[in-house]
Amino acid sequence: MGDQRTILQEWLNKIQAELESVVKFWTTHSHDVENGGFFNCLDKDGKVYDEIKYTWLQARQVWMYCRLYVEVERFHTPDILEAARNGADFLLEKCLIKQNGFTRCPFSVAKDGATIKVQRTMFAECFYVLAMSEMGRASTEEKYKVAARDMMRQIKHWCLVDTEGLGRENIPGSSFSASLAVPLMAYCVWEQMLTCEINWSDDAEVLQKWALDKMLQHIQRNGQHVLENVSDLGEELPGSAGRLQIPGHAIEGGWFLLQNAMMNKDKELAEKALTSFINKPFEQGWDKVNKGIFYFLDVEGYSPTQLEWNMKLWWPLNEAMIAFLMAYQYTADNSYLEKFQTVAEYTFAKFPDKQHGGWYGYLDNKGELTHRFKGGPWKGFFHVPRSLYMCEKILKKLL
Amino acid sequence: MGDQRTILQEWLNKIQAELESVVKFWTTHSHDVENGGFFNCLDKDGKVYDEIKYTWLQARQVWMYCRLYVEVERFHTPDILEAARNGADFLLEKCLIKQNGFTRCPFSVAKDGATIKVQRTMFAECFYVLAMSEMGRASTEEKYKVAARDMMRQIKHWCLVDTEGLGRENIPGSSFSASLAVPLMAYCVWEQMLTCEINWSDDAEVLQKWALDKMLQHIQRNGQHVLENVSDLGEELPGSAGRLQIPGHAIEGGWFLLQNAMMNKDKELAEKALTSFINKPFEQGWDKVNKGIFYFLDVEGYSPTQLEWNMKLWWPLNEAMIAFLMAYQYTADNSYLEKFQTVAEYTFAKFPDKQHGGWYGYLDNKGELTHRFKGGPWKGFFHVPRSLYMCEKILKKLL
Repeated sequence: MGDQRTILQEWLNKIQAELESVVKFWTTHSHDVENGGFFNCLDKDGKVYDEIKYTWLQARQVWMYCRLYVEVERFHTPDILEAARNGADFLLEKCLIKQNGFTRCPFSVAKDGATIKVQRTMFAECFYVLAMSEMGRASTEEKYKVAARDMMRQIKHWCLVDTEGLGRENIPGSSFSASLAVPLMAYCVWEQMLTCEINWSDDAEVLQKWALDKMLQHIQRNGQHVLENVSDLGEELPGSAGRLQIPGHAIEGGWFLLQNAMMNKDKELAEKALTSFINKPFEQGWDKVNKGIFYFLDVEGYSPTQLEWNMKLWWPLNEAMIAFLMAYQYTADNSYLEKFQTVAEYTFAKFPDKQHGGWYGYLDNKGELTHRFKGGPWKGFFHVPRSLYMCEKILKKLL
Repeated sequence: MGDQRTILQEWLNKIQAELESVVKFWTTHSHDVENGGFFNCLDKDGKVYDEIKYTWLQARQVWMYCRLYVEVERFHTPDILEAARNGADFLLEKCLIKQNGFTRCPFSVAKDGATIKVQRTMFAECFYVLAMSEMGRASTEEKYKVAARDMMRQIKHWCLVDTEGLGRENIPGSSFSASLAVPLMAYCVWEQMLTCEINWSDDAEVLQKWALDKMLQHIQRNGQHVLENVSDLGEELPGSAGRLQIPGHAIEGGWFLLQNAMMNKDKELAEKALTSFINKPFEQGWDKVNKGIFYFLDVEGYSPTQLEWNMKLWWPLNEAMIAFLMAYQYTADNSYLEKFQTVAEYTFAKFPDKQHGGWYGYLDNKGELTHRFKGGPWKGFFHVPRSLYMCEKILKKLL
């Protein structure tokens, strides 16, 4: 274990330093002191190249600041809490609209909060719950908890009753819960409310059960593959959508499930998480020639129809770092630590920017940088710091 | 001109041969004899890898078959007309739904025509007009002309009155006509109805004027750039969306405008088409290092936020082939023929598949194939045969 300890300590040092660099980059460049909220689109040097605000990213940044404030001592500072509040209040005051009798979060707003686009999904609302609940925990203020609770009840309705409030038409064959992202997200907010000890429903467990069951339905083809889209009854769908694999999603789901299994001492669930959601998708998604994790795959080897299928994005690697370190923590099996290192070495070699701080996000198939920005419509202050924070936490437990 | 004649004749030979290969690939593999309509998703050997039918592609294939039937002698066969009718009747009988008091075309349907997805844009309906009008011309049957006429009136309404019927909310700052694609498409259907001599409105010219004016509004920054998105008043929009250039779109618009200018002997418009829509976007979009045309660009050199921005797609090259050959026809300026050759040589080297016939569609930045299929959700029997047919037509006039 002497050798392992050295390895773990070295990674802890690297990860702590990188987390500080990333926090510094975003606290320096992303705060909109005039309007509240955060600028999401930051160029390599931190310059704002677009003032649109994406609510997914607003909310995730609030959540992340609060989580760091609550759980990591060196970030338990008034500045971090103030930054989080700045974002939470922007969401609460400027990013809610009424639609079809529901309270919706737009997908994107102008810098002053004016609505630009509303999606027909519940993801923005889920991230809003993450933000409000964690802000409630960090600040102990009731208004944020109330906001989280109210939205959570809507989410339960959309998952368990119907999705009409989302502006989706009820088209046969186009199922709301078809995508792995939906139960993954539902599980994530359920777990979040538990962590924050916000009681939002007398039968909150129903949502947990629904989300876990739905996630497990994605294990298909004799347990060999996690498919991204399945029918409401858990059957494989026809065509490219049915054959689609998103290894990063599966692996993210894997550590969610493993965490749940560890909490409930559920060995069977842990086994499914490790085998079906972490090991196989990584085996299938890791590029043995050029390294990195493919974004999309077709389970039968056809070309995925997504143009960016063979690109190497930062976030699947971030998820894999968490998953393998958690798997190592749970099993004490060295092979997981080795996999963690394989992924982390590639990730640390490719994404951090030593010059300006912060991480890049997008590489082509061969590992060459395709986009120079640090923040964009789909990349904010979330996957990178969450991965670093989770890995730091696990590493500290292991040491 | 002796040398030029040889060049033109050689290209004519190559293009004719390639057009036959492409027609053969699609007539052999794409026809759904059981349900009507066409399979769009064809693997490299023609195998159907997904049975979803995309109405854009259904309609474009009908249009293309009819156009070849009407204008190219060797395709004036009962088989081609029958294939077109097979698609037109599928659209007419199975791909129309009522929504908000309008007749809509879904974006995608199952193989039997059951609706899968409806978009909040008018593009499917525009392609439906292309199909019905050209089918009316090819078959001389009134029912197709009536269908085209009815839909055309809706399109005029969406362009000139309001877009409520499309299910779009009226969000300030999110303008319907902001994208170059909208007036380009509106112009395209207007021109199509004229070509087919279908009288659909006493003031059809209003739509033409609207579309041309709107297209020209996209010339921005002192005439140096065609921007993809502008405000309703023709002003540059903020952020990445405002700075976005899609060279392939501009060049496609360029030959639409040039054709209009030639028809109306409008020298001023021809000049704008050549300078602003064809030459500059090509100069800006052609990759001097690796060849090919970038899919997306940011006019100030920031990274475009689209993941696939630096990929080399087949269709911008197809559009550039038409544009440069038409420019050469109009100006007799040799530099256009040279540009045509530069583009056509790269295109012919990269996309045709000698083994199975048909063309691939997607290359990475360096020109390596990323997707092996011949048909997919966004690639059907349209850009390739339209380009080859248009080039063949122009070359024959030049020879």
